[in-house]
Amino acid sequence: MRHLGRPLTRLESGPLVAGRGWFVSGIALPDQLALRVIRSPYPHARITDLQLDAARAVPGVVAVWTSDDLGDVGPIGYRVDTGDDLAAFRQPILARDVARYVGEPVAVVIADTPAIAEDAAERVEIGADLLDVAVDSSVPHGPDTVPGSLAAVVDKGYGDVDAAFSRADVIVELDLAIARQAAMPLETRGLVAKWDGARDVLEVYGAAKLPHIDRDLLAGLVGRPASRIFLYEGHVGGSFGVRGEIGPEDVLVCLAALRLGRPVGWVEDRREHILAASPGRAQRHLARVAAGDDGRLLAIDVNFQLDQGAYLRPDALTAADLTAAMLPGPYELPAYRVRGEVLLTNKTPLGPCRGGGVAEAAFVRERLMDAVADRLGIDPTELRARNLIPRDAMPFKRPMTVLDWPVVYDSGDYAGLLERAAETLGIDALHRRLAARRAKGELVGLGLSIVVEPSAGGGGDGVRITIDDTGTVEVVTGAADIGQGVETVIAQIVADILAVPYTDVRVVHGRTDWIGFGQGARGNRTTVMTGTAAQQAAEKVREKALAAAAALIGVSAERLMLEAGEVRAIDHSDAPGLPIGAVARALRPERVAALGPDLAPDDGAGLSGEAWVTLDGPTYPYAVHAAVVAVDEDTGAATVERYLVAADVGNAINPRLIEGQLSGGAAHGIGGALSEELAYSPGGEPLAMTLSDYVLPTADQIPDIECLIADDAPSPLTPLGMKGCGGLGTSGAGAAIAAAIDAAIGQPGAITELPVTPARLRAILRGVG
Amino acid sequence: MRHLGRPLTRLESGPLVAGRGWFVSGIALPDQLALRVIRSPYPHARITDLQLDAARAVPGVVAVWTSDDLGDVGPIGYRVDTGDDLAAFRQPILARDVARYVGEPVAVVIADTPAIAEDAAERVEIGADLLDVAVDSSVPHGPDTVPGSLAAVVDKGYGDVDAAFSRADVIVELDLAIARQAAMPLETRGLVAKWDGARDVLEVYGAAKLPHIDRDLLAGLVGRPASRIFLYEGHVGGSFGVRGEIGPEDVLVCLAALRLGRPVGWVEDRREHILAASPGRAQRHLARVAAGDDGRLLAIDVNFQLDQGAYLRPDALTAADLTAAMLPGPYELPAYRVRGEVLLTNKTPLGPCRGGGVAEAAFVRERLMDAVADRLGIDPTELRARNLIPRDAMPFKRPMTVLDWPVVYDSGDYAGLLERAAETLGIDALHRRLAARRAKGELVGLGLSIVVEPSAGGGGDGVRITIDDTGTVEVVTGAADIGQGVETVIAQIVADILAVPYTDVRVVHGRTDWIGFGQGARGNRTTVMTGTAAQQAAEKVREKALAAAAALIGVSAERLMLEAGEVRAIDHSDAPGLPIGAVARALRPERVAALGPDLAPDDGAGLSGEAWVTLDGPTYPYAVHAAVVAVDEDTGAATVERYLVAADVGNAINPRLIEGQLSGGAAHGIGGALSEELAYSPGGEPLAMTLSDYVLPTADQIPDIECLIADDAPSPLTPLGMKGCGGLGTSGAGAAIAAAIDAAIGQPGAITELPVTPARLRAILRGVG
Repeated sequence: MRHLGRPLTRLESGPLVAGRGWFVSGIALPDQLALRVIRSPYPHARITDLQLDAARAVPGVVAVWTSDDLGDVGPIGYRVDTGDDLAAFRQPILARDVARYVGEPVAVVIADTPAIAEDAAERVEIGADLLDVAVDSSVPHGPDTVPGSLAAVVDKGYGDVDAAFSRADVIVELDLAIARQAAMPLETRGLVAKWDGARDVLEVYGAAKLPHIDRDLLAGLVGRPASRIFLYEGHVGGSFGVRGEIGPEDVLVCLAALRLGRPVGWVEDRREHILAASPGRAQRHLARVAAGDDGRLLAIDVNFQLDQGAYLRPDALTAADLTAAMLPGPYELPAYRVRGEVLLTNKTPLGPCRGGGVAEAAFVRERLMDAVADRLGIDPTELRARNLIPRDAMPFKRPMTVLDWPVVYDSGDYAGLLERAAETLGIDALHRRLAARRAKGELVGLGLSIVVEPSAGGGGDGVRITIDDTGTVEVVTGAADIGQGVETVIAQIVADILAVPYTDVRVVHGRTDWIGFGQGARGNRTTVMTGTAAQQAAEKVREKALAAAAALIGVSAERLMLEAGEVRAIDHSDAPGLPIGAVARALRPERVAALGPDLAPDDGAGLSGEAWVTLDGPTYPYAVHAAVVAVDEDTGAATVERYLVAADVGNAINPRLIEGQLSGGAAHGIGGALSEELAYSPGGEPLAMTLSDYVLPTADQIPDIECLIADDAPSPLTPLGMKGCGGLGTSGAGAAIAAAIDAAIGQPGAITELPVTPARLRAILRGVG
Repeated sequence: MRHLGRPLTRLESGPLVAGRGWFVSGIALPDQLALRVIRSPYPHARITDLQLDAARAVPGVVAVWTSDDLGDVGPIGYRVDTGDDLAAFRQPILARDVARYVGEPVAVVIADTPAIAEDAAERVEIGADLLDVAVDSSVPHGPDTVPGSLAAVVDKGYGDVDAAFSRADVIVELDLAIARQAAMPLETRGLVAKWDGARDVLEVYGAAKLPHIDRDLLAGLVGRPASRIFLYEGHVGGSFGVRGEIGPEDVLVCLAALRLGRPVGWVEDRREHILAASPGRAQRHLARVAAGDDGRLLAIDVNFQLDQGAYLRPDALTAADLTAAMLPGPYELPAYRVRGEVLLTNKTPLGPCRGGGVAEAAFVRERLMDAVADRLGIDPTELRARNLIPRDAMPFKRPMTVLDWPVVYDSGDYAGLLERAAETLGIDALHRRLAARRAKGELVGLGLSIVVEPSAGGGGDGVRITIDDTGTVEVVTGAADIGQGVETVIAQIVADILAVPYTDVRVVHGRTDWIGFGQGARGNRTTVMTGTAAQQAAEKVREKALAAAAALIGVSAERLMLEAGEVRAIDHSDAPGLPIGAVARALRPERVAALGPDLAPDDGAGLSGEAWVTLDGPTYPYAVHAAVVAVDEDTGAATVERYLVAADVGNAINPRLIEGQLSGGAAHGIGGALSEELAYSPGGEPLAMTLSDYVLPTADQIPDIECLIADDAPSPLTPLGMKGCGGLGTSGAGAAIAAAIDAAIGQPGAITELPVTPARLRAILRGVG
């Protein structure tokens, strides 16, 4: 059975549907303590008087700590090298003197049970002098609080933008905004740490997304060698960017376990999550585009501001850089200039959020395209087609960098995918149907967008494969599973090469004690990087197996192959086959010498192989989004009637899993387009504290997402040509839905701000938008 | 600082003296069940009626199982290939129909707590028809119970024994016996197993001595791939052979965990341990020696019987084979014939016990030597010296096998060690002092013995070394620690090569999930095998570090060395040094490409190296034992006044640890020589059920053991020349003490049976022995 390319059932599902999953909230170690964070109720305040005695007096409370108790632990560092420029903007573990956002950790209670910890935490009184609050760019921070409101500037560009604008036939300028959106995984954050005094090892349960990277960050923070911290990843109820990022709470849990000598657990409640976990987006763009009267773009010029919140998180400027770098998207754009300001405000700090940077850039770019199309009277799809980078221009180098790599789109047939998407939509008939409905008074329209985004690149990903005496295959990797199905995908790749059922391949991930390095699941990378490493390691194992079998049965390895769990002769002449487990047994360290010197176990005993993969830069998957949206004129409610994501992922190892990611991603995108917003009052108070304020789309608001999965443009960067799809389902949604609403209400360019909530849309419909 | 050869403090002691050790009895997993074994009260009986209902009715009892409930699980296999000959003698997990010794597992109770399990177990009634009992070789077993009393015969020999006896000047024939002796570690056996349903892995806590070998045995027994069972070794309160051997209880714990889906723990109580854990020794020898009138041996001819008990345990015939193979010991012996019968009796089955086989052989051989010396009127030391294999005959091949290897003593200066021992004793003065005391009526005498025993060989041992960014060294090995100090010894070897303090080297062992293969701590092997692998792996890491540093700083690797945790120029010209952690960082998978193609991470990312070692056969350490024993004529109590073990271990990595092993071993030997005996009534009832019946020597009965640690004869089999010392302290004790008592009471050859209990000695003194 060939596994590659088939929509096989997830291996991950078995324990989950049987109720055997392990989640951090289920970890209950003997003597485990519970930790509760006391958070600032003030957006910006000088802490004058922390009353802790009442909390300390609660029976069962083991410790109450403030920043004074932490000594020199922290602040939380960056996982990318930022030089010294950003050092001042790192977040302390507990606020020292000044609290800078509602929800900022100020103190911590550790007690015998979560209930005791929570009760005690409520007895803490925080006396403070309120300070001026910055909720947008217009209010600078005081010099002794956050050092200036402008944390950083991202500048990119190429070509002569001013010249382009001076000779343009058409210039459009837009003021566009994307609200703060949460990743909002089903499972909130949580961690259990235990100091194993017998081995002097800190064991940390509940890792997610970035086990090795977090291990290294935590090691520095708690002052231990990274090899003496083991992070264990269990099942993870989604990440979407946020789950697995190191926050102050994670550091507190580890410190408490080390200092108190008892296991310490913390599980975030939903209110905390909304208040304290990193959201994304939160950008405002002043964008200009210059085009010829043929609709060909001449230049784009953008100034944007990113409302970062009070501190920079470990991913530092990633979203800002991606926004700036990916704004030109799939289009040939002769000149480009962008300046992005990362502003510090009195809000929860931003962090990674699915599609981060790319989605914001896409909204801006595609809004510009729609505006040019409208101005020139060209069909928006046609206008896009005219500007797409042609297939034969690949690899396409843009004289600019993205996350310090040169931007080189590795492969792509953008026009081809746009055509396939249009075909799938039946776009001409669809336009006619929609026009007919509009003619009857319905507010309904179609919108399109095209996105291209970086996937993988940076860091090295490895795989170690071992086959035991029974022929069971174990694959150990530094990748992480955040629901995307890495076990299944890797098993499929390995199973084909080793000729075993993919259900016999056990993929072990999220164990920093088992493999020294890993990049987890960041940046849409696992299938690309770990998949390639798995392929290479499996090929090594196959070669080793064939060589050993050749020595065992006395034929040349060239005449042998793997088939159905056995080594067999290619011409099927040498019956019977040798089970792969028997080959593994012959390669045991005490037996291998009998096979001759070429199979010496120095590089790994047994039937095993290891491979590591690095890439010089990302691959670039891409997608076309199309949305049909109907608007209720009275309520302002927008309903997505139909949604298509056409995505080219180079090589679709498991189309079912890709559909899952694209569908889930689209839901996230639709939510961000229509309802999800972490708003703040002018005084810096968060307005969304629960899931009734922060409006996630419910299942009945998300149509069945149509997925067109293409692999017309395999990546030349890896043998199998895969590209990631983690963000593709999200990134184009805001732009497509905005265009569809424009079309529905017959007001081109009306939508300039996401989400298009009913209130905003009503205002637009009433002419006050 | 150089580490090799220095008596450094044990790394293992830190957590133990701080009370942070982890032992299996301290494992308390959530929902853990307790298992209690119901044991046969009959030495031999057909079970007719097992009344389990009362036990099942006890609240908190989860399951009560008999052999019917186990299906086809078991019997327990052998860890060496025995062909089919011994298949019938394997032990079932629970007795099926017939129970064959007091203490044999018959049923099992699993309950919420140990107390409930014990209470319920007491309610089980075992109805049975008693069968004939075999307690020694004279009673054959019935054909439908144990298939014949003779399980196996071990035959070895070379030369023309009959011709030698026909031309001998002197022939001595002795009838010698060594009682059943227990290993009796401070910590009894125990195991906790947990099925991790999220990963479908069986986790087993409490492994000891043989984690990987036990994993493979358990995998076969419970029907899982070995790679889906993880054995975890914690701290271990001694093994001395027995701790870590798979018994029925271990299998039951694993089965229960798998079947019940909850963790299951079992900790043996002392009575169970005495009754059910494998003892050793239990041999009777009819031995003849032929010698010339110059005292030179001509031949030895031995028939011995080994009272195996009811079944063969996983080590099968190891003790019988070692007894037969090692009986000639350090002497040139032109002809030799041995026949050993392994007899099945209705007693607890034997298993490994420190010095197993070698100690029994030494007692017989050295008793023969003393007898010849007495007969010829030659000083026993002189007689021994005349027969020792000379140094220049090394490597010395005896045309015989030991555990399937040809017997080849790799190196040895037996005469030299005997001289050094005599010197240490001040033997002439000592003889005079003792004679003077005897002249005054004291019963005091000196006895000597010489032993040589195999160490290591067989199986492959490996080590994987990794250095992290902070320069912390981690060594992962399949060896096990049973108190001998493997962490310290391996750390010393690695520290010298990598130029770091040995306290910075963390040695990880007993984790079958971390390294695929291992031989644990069997056969006096760890320093020899794992030490050599550690040396080789460390050298690889050093080479890799120097090559990487050379690429980093642009000099040739030949000009670099490791010193004080840094890479430095050999001529100290290129200041400053590069910390080894910085080199490790440069070798991260994502960075290594910058160092050039030679350092590709395919064979293991980072600053790491792996090596595996196999030997074609054992090394042969040797020892001289000398005891001064005083006898109380009235009580028959023998007091060891002085005890010397002079041992040549080839290369003493840490003399303090070797002293520890030799001293502890001597205590074990003294106990076996004077008091320890697992006796049975003629009806098959064990007479020792507690530690007041089974008489361990107490601290005041063991003198300070004098240790002379020699490394005059390094093994040529490994670069560092180490030999093991696990059994050396025990093996010679019985023979030396017997000789000393002979001398003390002035009755040469009086001692023919171990232990020489006060009762036995009083009988001898009264002429009725």
